[in-house]
Amino acid sequence: MSQDKATPPQVAASEPGGRLSRLSLRRVLIDTYHENVAYLHRDCEVYRAEGFKALSKVEVRTNGQSVLATLNVVDDAGIVACGELGLSQAAFCQLGSDERQTVTIAQAEPPASIGALRRKLGGERLALDDLRAIVRDITDHHYSKIELTAFVVATHRDELDREEVLFLTQAMVEAGQRLDWQEPRVVDKHCIGGIPGNRTSMLVVPIVAAHGMLCPKTSSRAITSPAGTADTMEVLAEVELPIERLQQIVQQHRGCLAWGGTAQLSPADDVLISVERPLALDAPGQMVASILSKKIAAGSSHLVLDIPIGPTAKVRSMPEAQRLRRLFEYVARRMKLSLDVVITDGRQPIGQGIGPVLEARDVMRVLENDPHAPMDLRQKALRLAGRMLEADPDVRGGDGFAIARDILDSGRALKKMNDLIDAQGRRPFDHHHPELGRLSFDVHARGNGVVCGIDNLQLARIARFAGAPKVRGAGVDLRAKLGEEVRDGDALYRVYANYPADLEFARQACTRSSGYSIGRAEDMPHVYVEF
Amino acid sequence: MSQDKATPPQVAASEPGGRLSRLSLRRVLIDTYHENVAYLHRDCEVYRAEGFKALSKVEVRTNGQSVLATLNVVDDAGIVACGELGLSQAAFCQLGSDERQTVTIAQAEPPASIGALRRKLGGERLALDDLRAIVRDITDHHYSKIELTAFVVATHRDELDREEVLFLTQAMVEAGQRLDWQEPRVVDKHCIGGIPGNRTSMLVVPIVAAHGMLCPKTSSRAITSPAGTADTMEVLAEVELPIERLQQIVQQHRGCLAWGGTAQLSPADDVLISVERPLALDAPGQMVASILSKKIAAGSSHLVLDIPIGPTAKVRSMPEAQRLRRLFEYVARRMKLSLDVVITDGRQPIGQGIGPVLEARDVMRVLENDPHAPMDLRQKALRLAGRMLEADPDVRGGDGFAIARDILDSGRALKKMNDLIDAQGRRPFDHHHPELGRLSFDVHARGNGVVCGIDNLQLARIARFAGAPKVRGAGVDLRAKLGEEVRDGDALYRVYANYPADLEFARQACTRSSGYSIGRAEDMPHVYVEF
Repeated sequence: MSQDKATPPQVAASEPGGRLSRLSLRRVLIDTYHENVAYLHRDCEVYRAEGFKALSKVEVRTNGQSVLATLNVVDDAGIVACGELGLSQAAFCQLGSDERQTVTIAQAEPPASIGALRRKLGGERLALDDLRAIVRDITDHHYSKIELTAFVVATHRDELDREEVLFLTQAMVEAGQRLDWQEPRVVDKHCIGGIPGNRTSMLVVPIVAAHGMLCPKTSSRAITSPAGTADTMEVLAEVELPIERLQQIVQQHRGCLAWGGTAQLSPADDVLISVERPLALDAPGQMVASILSKKIAAGSSHLVLDIPIGPTAKVRSMPEAQRLRRLFEYVARRMKLSLDVVITDGRQPIGQGIGPVLEARDVMRVLENDPHAPMDLRQKALRLAGRMLEADPDVRGGDGFAIARDILDSGRALKKMNDLIDAQGRRPFDHHHPELGRLSFDVHARGNGVVCGIDNLQLARIARFAGAPKVRGAGVDLRAKLGEEVRDGDALYRVYANYPADLEFARQACTRSSGYSIGRAEDMPHVYVEF
Repeated sequence: MSQDKATPPQVAASEPGGRLSRLSLRRVLIDTYHENVAYLHRDCEVYRAEGFKALSKVEVRTNGQSVLATLNVVDDAGIVACGELGLSQAAFCQLGSDERQTVTIAQAEPPASIGALRRKLGGERLALDDLRAIVRDITDHHYSKIELTAFVVATHRDELDREEVLFLTQAMVEAGQRLDWQEPRVVDKHCIGGIPGNRTSMLVVPIVAAHGMLCPKTSSRAITSPAGTADTMEVLAEVELPIERLQQIVQQHRGCLAWGGTAQLSPADDVLISVERPLALDAPGQMVASILSKKIAAGSSHLVLDIPIGPTAKVRSMPEAQRLRRLFEYVARRMKLSLDVVITDGRQPIGQGIGPVLEARDVMRVLENDPHAPMDLRQKALRLAGRMLEADPDVRGGDGFAIARDILDSGRALKKMNDLIDAQGRRPFDHHHPELGRLSFDVHARGNGVVCGIDNLQLARIARFAGAPKVRGAGVDLRAKLGEEVRDGDALYRVYANYPADLEFARQACTRSSGYSIGRAEDMPHVYVEF
């Protein structure tokens, strides 16, 4: 911004990358998470001669392998001595070399796609090859946090047109593994998120797989929610499976409920999330590319996509839901994915429990046809499963729901779930006596009336304060749902925690706002759903 | 982007900040530059109990002081042991505490202004208080790299209206020190940059100060250019002066030529630059806020602002220059700064040398009225100084140039410069025998013709490859300027370097492009300047 910032991009872009210097590799036992760090002693000849700066990006090479890292300068020979080059844990593993190995270090070349990024920052439209180059650099960890954030913010809001969203999706698929199940129909479902307790996948997969359709569901862990499908399934079974094992299970049982992180599907997505999460960004274009690239990479041919709508859901109006639906449909069609979008009721949490153990309990109750099973969870799962079953050419349009219900009611879904649990590796869990947090308190209604609002965001927040998903038994167990009459003093929900501090934080959150509105039946928000 | 990213900002925003745990402070001798890092052993009880994650932001407190830092997890008790909390060098200094002191650590509260940042990301217009909160958080290093970048990109291009630019400028001024010289007229000049060799400040300041006007010039070091004014002045004198010393010198000599970094003027600017530089962003709104906040904080009442225009300058067309001028004028007027914008010829480098020693030589030649002095540098400096002198109510409009010329020709400017050099601390320099890089090569014209283009960007790049500004004697010495006739084989410029590798990089850059176009006189680009 001052006179000195004069000379633009190209200076940095052609900064020499060839100044090599030989050092002895040392593993520095510092875990810097996704960020590679290299450590160099300040008195090291290389550091002085080459004019590296703290925080500049360097490339460390040995035996044809290389990693990019951010440089930290060290004044303690106990950490790295002169003549040594230290690498943080992740960087050391990425380089895949031994300690004491000779390595060379050079100023890193800027990522090849930096020109495309700059054009996007300048408001230009990007071509497929631009987005390919950007996604490749992101996948290879060539982007710094600054560059990553610039990309995410520059493609935020309406900054990507639908053609660019398609290109981004395609580039993200190409950047990772792509599974091929060698079958004409591979079905999956996905929800754009935002609704606590919405664990339909754990019902839909056993139903659909019991019918004989291929449904290899990989799911994620909670990032900012109180539980992801992977966290909840992990209460019942192992979910971190090697990709070969996962494929065996799918072949044998027609389905699985595993964590997707091991499969390297659309790996750029995981890197982008590391920036999107702290900024709580969830732009339509990025959402579409993220979800569809994962599904296509996972080999899905048919996808049922759930867009919940409600005052505290991600999507709050029907026009917004329709815009999002059209964008999903445009990209899916061009990527040859058969997509069925359903717009569902997102006015309140689904089911009764919020938190891994509580949600696992709800799921098992539905599978066992337990009279205490939450009807809304059962109903939603059956409708989603019904839609998926109708991808089977032998199922007539409109018959899916009844078939799904038969599979569930007959116990075949439960049987399939038990097969999947055994195949993945059963964990001890008794849903009749679930191990809930040992501390708890109830939140009560103040005044008489009808429950006419439940804030998804606040309930999720309370469950997280209580310790979910890290503390598996922590969370919120709902006693009243929308439309139910309550009287002053009735319990609205119970909060479970394992640690006094967690309990206290959750209690404070409840005091600020219980998340419940009690009023008249006519005050309930209306939503028009397409389902 | 998946189901798990459901719960938005507020979850993070109300994450409990109160979980305190007592640890013993340890200084970790790692220099992480502007980024504070805290180190905690993986087996440390606090780490396990509190669920911190690598790279999460923590707040470290002791005796009422606190710092925010990014957490790194350590598996080497030699770096930090269980029960210890390590801080990187800068963080340790900021906390200002002793080793072995008891400190507490907690999850950091998100910056207070994060809501305002999110609204900007959502495309909203921000109010003065929003920008005050954001700038305060930036100044206090409460923003992560991700948040900083999000702000810079979200306010890039036309995303700030002129009212917001005003608010940002005002907030940036308020966030730092503000000098008050207790005089009605404090004059300054500034160039938006982009033109190598443009060292007019080192001529303008002695001329204006010799006339008796107050001209306390603080300048910056090169960031991406081959030399900043501070780098060039440092060839002749000390430039890193404590603020009290600087004030004494100004009081006594009516001017100074010091580095501005010690004065804490508009400190948010320095933080923002750390993100803008790697992205090479230079959006109009950010440029105006950056430049004007620094000048207003430095106590200037009158500013002459130089906007060079040319095919390889920052501003490439007159309409663009006029738009930028109007934005500068709008904000300056509202901030009660008297602003005189001049639009100058930016088609080629100014003067002969590019690089600290070469530019210092040019400046001294002009001051000494040496026949080898570059006339364009002399001429531009006199015109700028003339404009500044006309801020003196005793100087009639149009007389400034002649007064400036008299001051220069009479040797009074040289005398003043020597006074300033002595006051700041003279460094040995003989501009008749400047210490240039010991290696050099010439670049020659291919074919006969007129120099009809000199690429500012390429010449700056070559000078940087040769080692400038770090290697003070490195750079480029021009032999031919625009409009001059050259014959095949004539030297166009000489490149100086100190190290063989630097020389080689510069040579490769010259081979890719010499930066010179030789053609017909009528091929020279035309610019219409307002000066």
